[in-house]
Amino acid sequence: MNIGIIGLGLMGGSFALDVKERFKEFVIYGFDKSDEHLKMSFDLKLIDFKLDDDNISNIDLLLISVPVDETINILPNILDKVGENTIVVDVGSTKLKICEGVSNHKNRKQFLAMHPIAGTENSGPNASVSGLYHGITNILCEVDKTDSNLLKKVMKILNNFEMKIIYMDPSSHDEHISYVSHLSHVTSFILAKTVIEKEKNEKNIFDLAGSGFESTVRLAKSSPFMWTPIFLQNKSNLVEALEGYINNLNDLKVKIQNDDKESIIDDLNNINRVKKILGGINNKNEK
Amino acid sequence: MNIGIIGLGLMGGSFALDVKERFKEFVIYGFDKSDEHLKMSFDLKLIDFKLDDDNISNIDLLLISVPVDETINILPNILDKVGENTIVVDVGSTKLKICEGVSNHKNRKQFLAMHPIAGTENSGPNASVSGLYHGITNILCEVDKTDSNLLKKVMKILNNFEMKIIYMDPSSHDEHISYVSHLSHVTSFILAKTVIEKEKNEKNIFDLAGSGFESTVRLAKSSPFMWTPIFLQNKSNLVEALEGYINNLNDLKVKIQNDDKESIIDDLNNINRVKKILGGINNKNEK
Repeated sequence: MNIGIIGLGLMGGSFALDVKERFKEFVIYGFDKSDEHLKMSFDLKLIDFKLDDDNISNIDLLLISVPVDETINILPNILDKVGENTIVVDVGSTKLKICEGVSNHKNRKQFLAMHPIAGTENSGPNASVSGLYHGITNILCEVDKTDSNLLKKVMKILNNFEMKIIYMDPSSHDEHISYVSHLSHVTSFILAKTVIEKEKNEKNIFDLAGSGFESTVRLAKSSPFMWTPIFLQNKSNLVEALEGYINNLNDLKVKIQNDDKESIIDDLNNINRVKKILGGINNKNEK
Repeated sequence: MNIGIIGLGLMGGSFALDVKERFKEFVIYGFDKSDEHLKMSFDLKLIDFKLDDDNISNIDLLLISVPVDETINILPNILDKVGENTIVVDVGSTKLKICEGVSNHKNRKQFLAMHPIAGTENSGPNASVSGLYHGITNILCEVDKTDSNLLKKVMKILNNFEMKIIYMDPSSHDEHISYVSHLSHVTSFILAKTVIEKEKNEKNIFDLAGSGFESTVRLAKSSPFMWTPIFLQNKSNLVEALEGYINNLNDLKVKIQNDDKESIIDDLNNINRVKKILGGINNKNEK
């Protein structure tokens, strides 16, 4: 099978590593608009050949792993170019606008909208890690709009990776993911911002912060070029989630100001249920 | 040396483990107002004897590791009871009100206000981990008010633990720690609350959340009985930090609503500096 990857960052590069490890006969063609990342991907042996207009028609599975606004821009052209046996799959963290963008494309059945729940806070080809896709949850949207035979090609790989597959419609996906993923990134970015603004002398943060701070701001190391388009594309859900979050912060602030100890303890006890919930999350890919 | 520990939770129990490992000849007396925790501490071999009114006068170093409001309540009585060669040390995450509470005590010189920057989200004697105190940053406040010879007893242990010692006044301590520690706990608790409220069906969180969410809400597993008194005792600093955080969230929300892509990317790029800062944090105690 010939695999194509457009966008050789953490998600694309790690996919290459996992495919190479498990399907040694597969050939990987890669493209990145950054020449530096393309060269790095050859040096790291992530890809075998450069993907170009001459060989794109021979690709069996084409993975798109670029920022979600770029995905919307390039996806129609890619569906125009690929051969009739190619399945195009994206890995974006938003699904509604990406699906809407190709809903009337003549080759819509050659596209699969996918969101593998995996990642780290690092980016670029050198952030690739093997095993990133192994055993994770993977959300597929609108599978009924994808050609069954082409879908089988993808499922062969996903099943080999022992993924837990969840089927959702794009709108529900974006709504739920805004809370369990996008909001976490916002809270982490803004926590880091607030602390950096306060501690003009960064040495204070070096000296005083512990593992709790480190864990809570880990996502603030994430790529702005990846996450800004996600926030904007999922605007309506994220703004609602953010407003709920800000309201809850204000409630706690008032309780603190009023020394309302019993009520705060009650709230935190209730929140402690997260222990049980987190116990159920498959953290194999925790970095 | 006889070590006394009042409060046999994560901090007290781990101190016992670390002392036992490095000073095999030391004898450890422990007390907890929970009979269950006291029994558990004997079972886990954290302590050798129960600390009581008969033996408290023979203690060389008495560690107080209870919630910070209890520390304020019991500290004056403890300073009344201990022998003249005893140094009393607390490990609370707030320092100003604890120092103020004993500022006029006749035995003030037998007290050392300390904040070891260590911990996990777990609590109770069975959360004790060996090595928790090793190599960490430890903040000492108002050391000039502590008797030099008694201070030496403590430093012998802290130096053996290879701690990085920082000296601060209690007011500055509380101000900076409200940002780099207390605010992280609030943001994590409230993120968990917001997501739990949205996802009435907890299975959605199980299924959809990844390691990013897990990392960001880790602190929401922390003890309400430990953290509520900290929030209240550091109210003025924490409310200021929270207001700055909420303002920054609202700013980002407006930028998202206005599709202000370039400005968001600029902000997030600036926040990415946290990578460099976090690279400098000693994460030996990351759990």
